[in-house]
Amino acid sequence: MIDELRREVCRLHAELVRYNLVVWTAGNVSGRVPGEDLFVIKPSGVSYDDLTPESIVVCDLDGNLVEGDLSPSSDTAAHAYVYRNMPEVNGVVHTHSTYASAWAARGEAIPCVLTAMADEFGGEIPLGPFALIGNDDIGKGIVATLTGHRSPAVLMQNHGVFTIGESPKAAVKAAVMCEDVARTVHVSRQLGEPLPIAQGDIDRLYDRYQNVYGQRSHL
Amino acid sequence: MIDELRREVCRLHAELVRYNLVVWTAGNVSGRVPGEDLFVIKPSGVSYDDLTPESIVVCDLDGNLVEGDLSPSSDTAAHAYVYRNMPEVNGVVHTHSTYASAWAARGEAIPCVLTAMADEFGGEIPLGPFALIGNDDIGKGIVATLTGHRSPAVLMQNHGVFTIGESPKAAVKAAVMCEDVARTVHVSRQLGEPLPIAQGDIDRLYDRYQNVYGQRSHL
Amino acid sequence: MIDELRREVCRLHAELVRYNLVVWTAGNVSGRVPGEDLFVIKPSGVSYDDLTPESIVVCDLDGNLVEGDLSPSSDTAAHAYVYRNMPEVNGVVHTHSTYASAWAARGEAIPCVLTAMADEFGGEIPLGPFALIGNDDIGKGIVATLTGHRSPAVLMQNHGVFTIGESPKAAVKAAVMCEDVARTVHVSRQLGEPLPIAQGDIDRLYDRYQNVYGQRSHL
Amino acid sequence: MIDELRREVCRLHAELVRYNLVVWTAGNVSGRVPGEDLFVIKPSGVSYDDLTPESIVVCDLDGNLVEGDLSPSSDTAAHAYVYRNMPEVNGVVHTHSTYASAWAARGEAIPCVLTAMADEFGGEIPLGPFALIGNDDIGKGIVATLTGHRSPAVLMQNHGVFTIGESPKAAVKAAVMCEDVARTVHVSRQLGEPLPIAQGDIDRLYDRYQNVYGQRSHL
Repeated sequence: MIDELRREVCRLHAELVRYNLVVWTAGNVSGRVPGEDLFVIKPSGVSYDDLTPESIVVCDLDGNLVEGDLSPSSDTAAHAYVYRNMPEVNGVVHTHSTYASAWAARGEAIPCVLTAMADEFGGEIPLGPFALIGNDDIGKGIVATLTGHRSPAVLMQNHGVFTIGESPKAAVKAAVMCEDVARTVHVSRQLGEPLPIAQGDIDRLYDRYQNVYGQRSHL
Repeated sequence: MIDELRREVCRLHAELVRYNLVVWTAGNVSGRVPGEDLFVIKPSGVSYDDLTPESIVVCDLDGNLVEGDLSPSSDTAAHAYVYRNMPEVNGVVHTHSTYASAWAARGEAIPCVLTAMADEFGGEIPLGPFALIGNDDIGKGIVATLTGHRSPAVLMQNHGVFTIGESPKAAVKAAVMCEDVARTVHVSRQLGEPLPIAQGDIDRLYDRYQNVYGQRSHL
Repeated sequence: MIDELRREVCRLHAELVRYNLVVWTAGNVSGRVPGEDLFVIKPSGVSYDDLTPESIVVCDLDGNLVEGDLSPSSDTAAHAYVYRNMPEVNGVVHTHSTYASAWAARGEAIPCVLTAMADEFGGEIPLGPFALIGNDDIGKGIVATLTGHRSPAVLMQNHGVFTIGESPKAAVKAAVMCEDVARTVHVSRQLGEPLPIAQGDIDRLYDRYQNVYGQRSHL
Repeated sequence: MIDELRREVCRLHAELVRYNLVVWTAGNVSGRVPGEDLFVIKPSGVSYDDLTPESIVVCDLDGNLVEGDLSPSSDTAAHAYVYRNMPEVNGVVHTHSTYASAWAARGEAIPCVLTAMADEFGGEIPLGPFALIGNDDIGKGIVATLTGHRSPAVLMQNHGVFTIGESPKAAVKAAVMCEDVARTVHVSRQLGEPLPIAQGDIDRLYDRYQNVYGQRSHL
């Protein structure tokens, strides 16, 4: 079970590379081990080319290394906090993708002006607080912002993006779509103000997308 | 005949990927089956890497699945409406390509300020209405905007692009060229106002391109 | 001799693709046949993937097809005019690359604010006139603008770029560098005014680059 | 020892290509030979595809060619000056990467508004002087700007970027991260003013990153 999850999480990092969400080693995917208080995550400082299923490490929900030869990602504490506090989440992704991080650096949520945003995020992509690495502040900011929110993505101020999902793949999809809409809305606003979508229409699009696609929720 | 069309439509999705018109599974190509009230289209939610000719599904002109193991694209109703109402159209493409969608989010047509636009689109790329998915509204918006218009591309407000062609390949070319000119005109306008091209020159360029290239029309 | 040139011109089209200067079939390279009143050029409407040395066609200096099974590029007349009127030119490239075309759509020359521009272009990249396809107007605009100018690149208003060189490869290099500096200067100007480089420094950089690199001129 | 370094420096040029920091032949990596007054560097005018470990040349600290069949990079004097005057530096990289060069063309340092910048650069990325090629002016500008500065990257006015590191790989990483943050901060500022990060937080992030990651300094 863990080995299969390691393969999947290893493989999903290639999607971050393919969609240009990461440079060098800055970005990571994790996945909860079904039925256990464990998750697997990228090791720290390993390039995406060199990542293998064996190099993916296993941590407990306090972020302590349980299995693996390498140190876990420096973002492990934030992933662990999410798994401890959001039991429905089985995958977490972190990136510094350009356009999403640009909104985050200004401290602005991304307004919902695309039907694809209504589908995937159910409204705006919210802003989380500025938080330093080194304790639970980043994790707390993620959980406080996403709890009760439709969006599976949060822009952490001056930092980057965290996304959640009911699987690692769903969290990666949210990271890909987040950067895609962050870029399109940015480009649109460069030459004027995008037209808003009425709240009722956002609700209809979101409800339909979650049901027609058989996805109970963004998790 | 249908198998050959499936191979072609499958192959053409790779062009959407190559030209960065799509991320994840958001974008689709369809093609009318010659001489029959049928068309083939991408299945829903299948990644472009996993697409095979066998996975391409067959629908009737009301968008009902006729052959195939997977559900048709969630945009099938819009494609079907176009085939029902524009008999000269044999290919339809839908994308959320970044720059075209950015114009669509502001609700602005793309002005014709490039000779390549005059060649391919015969003038501006027009704006279609805001329309929700789930009935024929998107299809109606496409047909109402493109009927009698030179452009094979329409920007659907707050949504993305639909293009039509006399073949699936022609519709894909229109989608590629649409994003290319959407980007160039956007970039140009970022630092000032692009110079207009006189209507007579647009007409001359369009007429020549349709004839010299042996293309009877953009279809 | 012609076969070797066909291979080289075929191969150079891959550089246009690699550097994202072209989409679909919009862009072409030509090369003068040494010692003969002939040049080779891309055939019209052939995709870059399908281009082979055999498919490259041979034309005389009036642009008439001399050898080859396909029609020559629709831009052949412009290439031919350059070869007829600039005997020192042995390679010509045409693209609609995004940033250069964006400057061209506004009708603005690109100011020399980068040392790399001083090196390669010896100053600004100049603007040529608006001209329709179908006669010698484009060729005349290119020659009138580049004759006596240091720059091997000209921005044709509302259209795109033509570059010249003492070889096809030199013309391709000029097209690559033109888009590169067009993009950097564009990005720089988005947030303010780039600092000018003094004319004396531009001259010193240009003179050194032409000599140290053993290149007699940009041709 | 030198052969191993040549292989490494050859290989690292592929990272400049991968991250789109260079076009054609404009950009180079060098590495100091441990325990000797020598360094290895890219030969001049060789395309990245054609670069082999054997083609990498060896120079003394005055920039004179010591071993190799080709001329050293035209930027060799600047690399040599850095090695002569910064004994702790073992790798130097030069690029004209788009966004960093755009800041350089305006003569502006990049403000520290991203936690990733605080981690890697310890604050802003500073601006160096305008300097002509051909003597030690560029090298002096690099050393004067980076001595006593946390940042391993300097924006040379109207020119491009130089980065330093305790190894060639560290200098390449700095070049990759420099362009990444130059782009993100640029994009962020296009639509408003990014939020500053308090100096105390920048210091905490920088100190942690240098220690937790076991990196004594950016060198």
